[in-house]
Amino acid sequence: MALGNTYESENCSAARALEVIGERWSLLIIRDALFRGTTRFSDFQRDLGLARNVLASRLDGFVEAGLMTRRPPENGAYHEYQLTRKGLDLKPAVIALTIWGDRWAAPNGPPIIYRHDACEGEIELQLVCNKCGEQPAMDQIGVTPGPGFAVTH
Amino acid sequence: MALGNTYESENCSAARALEVIGERWSLLIIRDALFRGTTRFSDFQRDLGLARNVLASRLDGFVEAGLMTRRPPENGAYHEYQLTRKGLDLKPAVIALTIWGDRWAAPNGPPIIYRHDACEGEIELQLVCNKCGEQPAMDQIGVTPGPGFAVTH
Repeated sequence: MALGNTYESENCSAARALEVIGERWSLLIIRDALFRGTTRFSDFQRDLGLARNVLASRLDGFVEAGLMTRRPPENGAYHEYQLTRKGLDLKPAVIALTIWGDRWAAPNGPPIIYRHDACEGEIELQLVCNKCGEQPAMDQIGVTPGPGFAVTH
Repeated sequence: MALGNTYESENCSAARALEVIGERWSLLIIRDALFRGTTRFSDFQRDLGLARNVLASRLDGFVEAGLMTRRPPENGAYHEYQLTRKGLDLKPAVIALTIWGDRWAAPNGPPIIYRHDACEGEIELQLVCNKCGEQPAMDQIGVTPGPGFAVTH
């Protein structure tokens, strides 16, 4: 069956990543979990101030997508949400989005700085060629089809 | 004035980046511009198959946000859209989202591979500490307030 040339046929890993976090509240919830260690419904709610039904629906979505696991409360009324390996692995993407925003949408300077816990150095994102070891300029990075390309193209 | 604890008061560079590309069509348009060199309205439209009014509104938004410049057609009916430095600078964020999607949402393997044009090596994303030069594990990366923190907190 030939797939139509519509979004459903787009076989793009970046788009699939945005399906999960491509909405501002989603990103802010993931950010709190990644960098503040937030786990409790009530803490997400207090920090972000979003409506409880919106928060519940986003957290449910993350559990369903395998980004978080839900744990019954130990002694309180609230469930806890723990990032899985899949969820933790969003850290580089959140950092990359932050670096762009720091440069282009933060007139007063970066609101936060990512640091190496051990030595407090700042974290830099580098795009490195695994063959020659260089860091190519942006316009020297291209694309070729990978193993998953043929499937929907 | 104390700002309410709502999305408007969130001073988060990652969220601001998503305001610009945090929607799937937006990302796919930016991706085509970044990695296929697409510039013409008709080429975006043919490749992505999205409605003309949606495409026009996204491209207008990119011009307004300073990600693209619009150039009158040289000899045809269609305007051309050229990425600015600000737009080109989204490349690392798109690559970071792609890497996550490749790992967690591409059961048939990566649809595309990012390569160094010069030697065809694959591009890897590395998070490097600018003080000790190490690549810290994900759970060894934390945050501290930056110069722009106080402004809305």
